[in-house]
Amino acid sequence: MAKKNMLIAQSGGPTAVINSSVVGAFDSAVDSGAIHRVYAANCGILGVLNEDLFDLTVQQPIAMQLLKNTPSSGLGSCRHKLNPDVNTKEYKRIFDVLKAHDIGYFFYNGGNDSMDTANKLSKAAKDQGYDIKVIGIPKTVDNDLCETDHCPGFGSAAKYINTSVLEAAYDCYTYNTKTVILMETMGRHAGWLAASGCLAEYNGKPIADFIYLPEVDFDTDRFLSDIERAYNEQQLVFAIISEGIRDKDGSFITTQQQTHDDKFGHKQLGGVADYLMSIVQEKITKRVKAINPNVLQRCAMHCVSGKDLEETYAAGYKAVRFALDGLTGIMPGYKRISNSPYQYDIVPIELDKVANNEKKIPSAWINKENNNITEELKDYVRPLIQGQENLLHKNGLPQYVKLDKTPIEKKLQDYR
Amino acid sequence: MAKKNMLIAQSGGPTAVINSSVVGAFDSAVDSGAIHRVYAANCGILGVLNEDLFDLTVQQPIAMQLLKNTPSSGLGSCRHKLNPDVNTKEYKRIFDVLKAHDIGYFFYNGGNDSMDTANKLSKAAKDQGYDIKVIGIPKTVDNDLCETDHCPGFGSAAKYINTSVLEAAYDCYTYNTKTVILMETMGRHAGWLAASGCLAEYNGKPIADFIYLPEVDFDTDRFLSDIERAYNEQQLVFAIISEGIRDKDGSFITTQQQTHDDKFGHKQLGGVADYLMSIVQEKITKRVKAINPNVLQRCAMHCVSGKDLEETYAAGYKAVRFALDGLTGIMPGYKRISNSPYQYDIVPIELDKVANNEKKIPSAWINKENNNITEELKDYVRPLIQGQENLLHKNGLPQYVKLDKTPIEKKLQDYR
Repeated sequence: MAKKNMLIAQSGGPTAVINSSVVGAFDSAVDSGAIHRVYAANCGILGVLNEDLFDLTVQQPIAMQLLKNTPSSGLGSCRHKLNPDVNTKEYKRIFDVLKAHDIGYFFYNGGNDSMDTANKLSKAAKDQGYDIKVIGIPKTVDNDLCETDHCPGFGSAAKYINTSVLEAAYDCYTYNTKTVILMETMGRHAGWLAASGCLAEYNGKPIADFIYLPEVDFDTDRFLSDIERAYNEQQLVFAIISEGIRDKDGSFITTQQQTHDDKFGHKQLGGVADYLMSIVQEKITKRVKAINPNVLQRCAMHCVSGKDLEETYAAGYKAVRFALDGLTGIMPGYKRISNSPYQYDIVPIELDKVANNEKKIPSAWINKENNNITEELKDYVRPLIQGQENLLHKNGLPQYVKLDKTPIEKKLQDYR
Repeated sequence: MAKKNMLIAQSGGPTAVINSSVVGAFDSAVDSGAIHRVYAANCGILGVLNEDLFDLTVQQPIAMQLLKNTPSSGLGSCRHKLNPDVNTKEYKRIFDVLKAHDIGYFFYNGGNDSMDTANKLSKAAKDQGYDIKVIGIPKTVDNDLCETDHCPGFGSAAKYINTSVLEAAYDCYTYNTKTVILMETMGRHAGWLAASGCLAEYNGKPIADFIYLPEVDFDTDRFLSDIERAYNEQQLVFAIISEGIRDKDGSFITTQQQTHDDKFGHKQLGGVADYLMSIVQEKITKRVKAINPNVLQRCAMHCVSGKDLEETYAAGYKAVRFALDGLTGIMPGYKRISNSPYQYDIVPIELDKVANNEKKIPSAWINKENNNITEELKDYVRPLIQGQENLLHKNGLPQYVKLDKTPIEKKLQDYR
């Protein structure tokens, strides 16, 4: 039987380590000897629809090595949601492209929406009797995929956030004056990234006095009383704030800034930390700094977690093994065996259980005052930020790669 | 003749490497065999005034090693400006404290204002016939000290900024959609930090399309036309904006013309990228991200420049040599010998030429459109960001130290 080709694509927001999955899958395909060419789609499912494919097998070997240490989605990404109705032109086109290039294995590397896409494609292929294995490969700094212990990319973002918390605290402790720091993190509806900043310590004590999460209602008055109480007692007050915090009515706190202008009549701009800074300045003290690392937190390969990088590679590697074993409609997920020593396994998880779900922080891991997390959450995050990677540098900066995306020959007419 | 003691203190904003100067000075004192105790003042000149001194000679040896790789001012800092009139109680108190502890050498490690303080003390000591050598040890991420080729701390901030530019660009290039990034840097009235971001490249081309500097007038209309033109032609438009940009009338372009100035009368700056984002969103596109690393850029030891760390240590080491050679009223400064290979020397520079001056970017290093820098500036910055440092890590995070600041016995009554 002739060997089939495989196709891999990436989707959604990037992470520091997402390319490590691709390299893991690539190496696994090569090692297996069971796959002919390893193709990639340019910019996710859009690349499939546009028949915009390129060949990973012809990249310079050094490029694939560098790709493992290159942040962001090296294959290109998109945010495109497939129609729930599988009888549409879109699905037909996808399968036409896959068939035209003799794809027997399709891997979709992304977050919630990507797992949904992979799930739909797997089902549609079965319905239509097309023999293809469709596997999701998880990634998301938000850490909100269900069923897996944690998500590839989260550990590195957590390491960057903790390093930033640590260095910002050292910065502020240098003065004999009081300061409030409000650091904003990503994470959407899940507080994992904000919570992850719990590990950094100064002088043996946690730096984060408060962590405000979307899992619980945010009350501005209670926030102010938290900050004021700590400000009266401490030199540095450090709060980490998830971008997704909401009030008891479910409204994002960021939307409230629309109505809140400063005393000069300027609109208060930026994210939730900027907004809360303006309130603290008005009510408590002018000595507040708002820090929002923005996209820097999700692409900080220079501060990557060695453990995250290793696990993410392993997830990509295992994804191909699962496909070759005949599995479809699944993703490789992490199963934690123990915290100390940290041990994990990679197991297949049905995409049906993952797609369109979000994993929030369990309420038992949030303190009773709803303004910080518990030791259990620290024990959960700690193993994920371990280990460093020595990156190749050129002229003082990390050497990242841009793949050669020369398209392979098209076999179909243009879409639409 | 009995050996004298030395005293070292830090002042002004911290940097990633400022403690490396202290360790260099400490090692130099020990190596010389000519100095008895090495004392430090807690929080700059305030520690001297309060006779709040501690002993570096009794720190655990590992603490001094870790201090070299600990960001921010390990001795503590302050922002306290001495009265220009040297016949005040304040000077008398300082000399009383120095004499009481038999200080023959005083080192003040800081930026512009600190060099001014050291200069005043050196002159006052001479006037009063007190035999003490007073030496400034430069530091500032702003890179705005005169006479020295560059400033300790600048190279590391530049490395962090370039790394962030690089990773943010990789983040944005992942999508097939257009994006504008506005990244804000510190630097006050000098554009060195903003300009330093010129080195990061994507696919062999500079990432920063525009760099807006305080050295030239900022015109919002011209800025908008720059961004719009590039936005029509490119996928990613990347502008780096100095916090200190001003319009032709000298007014800061920022939403937060603070009502409170710091103790030196400096305006508190910040928020210009957020402000310009709101204008770009109104006039050009909603797809804009404002990134402001804030204090993270000045304390990022995790991304330190190995060259900066080495040079800063050498400056501290040489400062003590200069003092033992009988110099006073000077600071060690860098003299660049060549760019390629990069070679430098450390030379004594009179504080009279440094205090109360600011070094701006020469106009020949700014392009004629006033919206970017020239190759000369790249050649200037490039050597300063070279080299990495393998930090000691604990539990996945860099291991930084907090010194034992147990005060030495007071010999005087409390001040005031």
